[in-house]
Amino acid sequence: MTEQNRSPARRALAVILAAGEGTRMKSRRPKVLHEVAGRSMLAHVLAAVGAAEVEAAAVVVGAGREDVAGEARRLCPGARSFVQERQLGTAHAVLAAREAIAEGYDDLIVLFADTPLVSPATIAALRRSLAEGAGVAVLAFEAATPYGYGRILRDGEGGVRAIREEKDASEEERRVTLCNAGLMAIDGASALALMEGVGSDNAQGEFYLTDVVERAVAAGLPTRVVLAAEEEVLGVNDRVQLARAEQIAQQRLRRAAMLGGATLIAPETVFLSFDTQLGRDVTIEPHVVIGPGVAIGDGATIHAFSHLEGASVGAGAQIGPYARLRPGARLAAAAKIGNFVEIKAADIGEGAKVNHLSYIGDAIVGAHANIGAGVITCNYDGFFKYRTTIGANAFVGSNSSLVAPVAIGDGAYVGSGSVITRDVGVDALAVARGRQMEKGGWASAFRARQSEKKKG
Amino acid sequence: MTEQNRSPARRALAVILAAGEGTRMKSRRPKVLHEVAGRSMLAHVLAAVGAAEVEAAAVVVGAGREDVAGEARRLCPGARSFVQERQLGTAHAVLAAREAIAEGYDDLIVLFADTPLVSPATIAALRRSLAEGAGVAVLAFEAATPYGYGRILRDGEGGVRAIREEKDASEEERRVTLCNAGLMAIDGASALALMEGVGSDNAQGEFYLTDVVERAVAAGLPTRVVLAAEEEVLGVNDRVQLARAEQIAQQRLRRAAMLGGATLIAPETVFLSFDTQLGRDVTIEPHVVIGPGVAIGDGATIHAFSHLEGASVGAGAQIGPYARLRPGARLAAAAKIGNFVEIKAADIGEGAKVNHLSYIGDAIVGAHANIGAGVITCNYDGFFKYRTTIGANAFVGSNSSLVAPVAIGDGAYVGSGSVITRDVGVDALAVARGRQMEKGGWASAFRARQSEKKKG
Amino acid sequence: MTEQNRSPARRALAVILAAGEGTRMKSRRPKVLHEVAGRSMLAHVLAAVGAAEVEAAAVVVGAGREDVAGEARRLCPGARSFVQERQLGTAHAVLAAREAIAEGYDDLIVLFADTPLVSPATIAALRRSLAEGAGVAVLAFEAATPYGYGRILRDGEGGVRAIREEKDASEEERRVTLCNAGLMAIDGASALALMEGVGSDNAQGEFYLTDVVERAVAAGLPTRVVLAAEEEVLGVNDRVQLARAEQIAQQRLRRAAMLGGATLIAPETVFLSFDTQLGRDVTIEPHVVIGPGVAIGDGATIHAFSHLEGASVGAGAQIGPYARLRPGARLAAAAKIGNFVEIKAADIGEGAKVNHLSYIGDAIVGAHANIGAGVITCNYDGFFKYRTTIGANAFVGSNSSLVAPVAIGDGAYVGSGSVITRDVGVDALAVARGRQMEKGGWASAFRARQSEKKKG
Repeated sequence: MTEQNRSPARRALAVILAAGEGTRMKSRRPKVLHEVAGRSMLAHVLAAVGAAEVEAAAVVVGAGREDVAGEARRLCPGARSFVQERQLGTAHAVLAAREAIAEGYDDLIVLFADTPLVSPATIAALRRSLAEGAGVAVLAFEAATPYGYGRILRDGEGGVRAIREEKDASEEERRVTLCNAGLMAIDGASALALMEGVGSDNAQGEFYLTDVVERAVAAGLPTRVVLAAEEEVLGVNDRVQLARAEQIAQQRLRRAAMLGGATLIAPETVFLSFDTQLGRDVTIEPHVVIGPGVAIGDGATIHAFSHLEGASVGAGAQIGPYARLRPGARLAAAAKIGNFVEIKAADIGEGAKVNHLSYIGDAIVGAHANIGAGVITCNYDGFFKYRTTIGANAFVGSNSSLVAPVAIGDGAYVGSGSVITRDVGVDALAVARGRQMEKGGWASAFRARQSEKKKG
Repeated sequence: MTEQNRSPARRALAVILAAGEGTRMKSRRPKVLHEVAGRSMLAHVLAAVGAAEVEAAAVVVGAGREDVAGEARRLCPGARSFVQERQLGTAHAVLAAREAIAEGYDDLIVLFADTPLVSPATIAALRRSLAEGAGVAVLAFEAATPYGYGRILRDGEGGVRAIREEKDASEEERRVTLCNAGLMAIDGASALALMEGVGSDNAQGEFYLTDVVERAVAAGLPTRVVLAAEEEVLGVNDRVQLARAEQIAQQRLRRAAMLGGATLIAPETVFLSFDTQLGRDVTIEPHVVIGPGVAIGDGATIHAFSHLEGASVGAGAQIGPYARLRPGARLAAAAKIGNFVEIKAADIGEGAKVNHLSYIGDAIVGAHANIGAGVITCNYDGFFKYRTTIGANAFVGSNSSLVAPVAIGDGAYVGSGSVITRDVGVDALAVARGRQMEKGGWASAFRARQSEKKKG
Repeated sequence: MTEQNRSPARRALAVILAAGEGTRMKSRRPKVLHEVAGRSMLAHVLAAVGAAEVEAAAVVVGAGREDVAGEARRLCPGARSFVQERQLGTAHAVLAAREAIAEGYDDLIVLFADTPLVSPATIAALRRSLAEGAGVAVLAFEAATPYGYGRILRDGEGGVRAIREEKDASEEERRVTLCNAGLMAIDGASALALMEGVGSDNAQGEFYLTDVVERAVAAGLPTRVVLAAEEEVLGVNDRVQLARAEQIAQQRLRRAAMLGGATLIAPETVFLSFDTQLGRDVTIEPHVVIGPGVAIGDGATIHAFSHLEGASVGAGAQIGPYARLRPGARLAAAAKIGNFVEIKAADIGEGAKVNHLSYIGDAIVGAHANIGAGVITCNYDGFFKYRTTIGANAFVGSNSSLVAPVAIGDGAYVGSGSVITRDVGVDALAVARGRQMEKGGWASAFRARQSEKKKG
């Protein structure tokens, strides 16, 4: 938070509108709980509000939307939820939070939970307008194709005279490309009066928040326009727009990662999450997916086709290609996880290697241990999960099965293809496999027999 | 098919030109058999013709192109093929199908098998023009860069006066951006006469279909222009254009999927097929490839890096990441297929799990069975394939091999690392593995010996 | 090299500036050693210089940049390195190579190691300008947004009057969109005198190479402008620009591959290397990564999600999906490598198959051998690597472990789940696994017990 983004003298309330039905999403899930970059759209807006140091948040949800209220509570225990029983327009929705508004905040900021990409800096800019004397500050953007958006009619003094809907606009007004983003900041002292003055004398019979502007002008209150990029105020109404929001969010995350010193060879094929942490000189090859909760240390390389979530990767580690790190995978420095390997809830020690075709779950692998190809920790019996412990410098031969709970001692050696059901001592060799038998000529006879059948 | 797309009173013949040599493809395969979104370009055009309720189709193929004629027959048993022995221009090519044309259809529609993205609606629009009295209707598009295309010279009444090739165009005519897409509809009663009147008095000495327009004008027949998007009439002459056609087809499929209620987190990394069926609230993560013949039920999730073809996925199933479903994989509701798992010709029961590093082929897995990591159905002996049956609620321990033909009874339990060659009874335990032996201190002695060698 | 690209009568020296600190890369690695399409940026420039038949190359490196000098030596044994002790501007940097310049080449060409996409044809065009009488030839590009670039002020005769930096430009000059790409060719006879005449009388107190132009004009030497596409002269200063360079390089490689007769279904998801060789009618599905050193024969298919490096693939081979070919994988014609399979340093014979979940390393697999699912060559004991040899027509059952060194004879058969530690004879059957035992009712008792625990 830079000095510029702060308005410490004033206390603010954010009202986040989250009651829209989202019919065009064609989903059983509430629209604002659909995710962008690994968290819900609602979470993005709440996070931006928090980062802008807004003191209080109220979320307006539709009737029966306990799941939305629950998500708000989970994300931000201080946030209150208010129910808008009927959908009678945006001003009506904001007034559902009347109880909170009436508590006398200096700034009232209205945001939309389906406009997930708005930045803390933009919220701060809206607040600054109020601090500098505006009664209402409107967020606007230059639209590439303004058709359908409400147009911002300027007053010649940096303010706004009115917001004109498409259908009410004159020929000349339609040529205006400055459009209404919906977000608004209203001086707390005037907010309730301005909104209560909004009427529903329009085609839809709804109470529009945009009418607050003309009411403010009529009341002689100064207005202001704050500009945002069109991308930042993208509203999500269907899944095509959801994908577009994801794309913009990913572009931001990738760009920040690269400028911070990570190489993304093909950034357009790499998917990050809102909380991804990348060290310096991290290299991420093409086709990598990083879910929430991942931190990658300096100098580590994530090879192509890897998938990480809830995992930490130590400095200089080598991951993939085709490595899957699941939640609870904790890799120490210089660890190496190779292809077709799954790690879950396991600590992999410094310099340890799991190079091929393995599943290591609920385990501790000691430093510099070498886990051969195809090794599997058999951690589940259909009811419980059990732990496997592999000592430092141990060597587990290929295709072995470690039936947990089981411990392999430091420096121990497990022969290839063994099924290990009992603990193995420090520096011991354990082997558990059948004896090799051979029948000379069997294969040629078998082939003759089967060929015959195939013909017959 | 909407009311608008139909012209039921008239019978139509589509002549599909598929005789071009496709030299720039640099391929042994005929150009029109190269694929877009999982089927050949020829198949796309035949499907559009079928969807536009065109009664008959004739495919004009080059000499010796039995493979093209065969594909046409396979796709559309009623389609006839005609051979154009020498390549003497597009009018000449259409006349190869003279026998069909002479049968007296109301509408003759000329299409190109290397223009695969044309929509049924566009074909219907061409037909409507004929129904409304046009003698010839020409498909046109606004070209972003018209250089090289034939320009449409309008007659001021919604018709076309002539189609002017680049090299014959005046300065002024070259500024025209309305270009000829090639596709054309001709009134059946005039078609043969118009085409037979086309001469070859031009630089190439070829018979051009475009000359039909001037002949129609000369004969006083009304002409019409039907507009299409440039994307829709993309012609494929090399593999760069093939990739572009694929991209456009994918964009259409992805958009339709999203608007239908599926989430594609990163649609640009998801590849669908012409016949992909997605239920509501299906989520497809980044980097997924779906080949032909796939249907996915409501609420299922396809995690990143999955590859499906010829498979059905039940409602609420979880697939991947890194799951490969091959033809004949049929997953019941709430089944779970995890990472590095291949399923082929197998029924996976409701709620059954195959979570890691497995190959399940030619098998039946009962409801709620749990297949451990690394389990393999050994279904092939080099000559024949055999079936594996796993009962409901069975638990197959990790790294087990099931040597088919074999059956695991309901509720049975197979110990980890077993090689199962005989049937296992209901609720029984089967174990087949070696005994674990241990040699204390062996590993430290081994390390000392090998280190010595390494130095030496 | 076409006739046009050559200027055989003149000898040329390329001075490649590689001393920039690259602070904005935020990397411990020198900027010019960051990679594009599988080799360092420096390697790209050296390769272009070589392809343009430039006789000698001098690389100017920063103090202490032995790694850059080393890479130059490795790539191009004839290249000399010169150290620029302090960074006093581009003319100063070129003069670090004074010793080489003084040897009397006809052409001096100045290139930048962080401008990696410059083509041999462009270098040849610069040289041609000198051959045709220019004293100085400047590489220019039409900038989409010229802000920040030096503008090329033309002299009305195809030459350049001056290069004006942004900050020194008049209003009118700023409207010029022709910008300086930095690369320059100077007549060898005048080069030293021109550069030594450059002063440091500017804000930064640096010696700018661009001043050579005005000095040449003052000396009455003819100047020339050579045009390049903006993409070609992209300079890399941070990792966002590095990713952009990668993207352009990939687009070139993909386009060339497609026009050469390979199908890239979704080229934007396929990553090639500078030296990738693709035969005719190769098909590459979406999401494929090809590292350096890969050659793929005619008619081979690389299925989705495959990763190849240092590998050769025979004609008609089938690779993937999810196949990883590592260095030293050599696949004969019609070989088949399936999903979740890793091949390293192994020869796979004609028509041999490794279809599922296997690791084959340090091995020879004979023609038409069939390697079952989950087979692993256990090639490492923690100290040494050992070889596995599998004969022609051998059949290795699923989930087998082959403990190297070991040989499986031609036509031999290994039973599923075997751990093979001794050689298997020609046409013999080898089995090495435990006996199957069964305990009736065990599983139901176990379930009852565990359920009880779970509740308790």
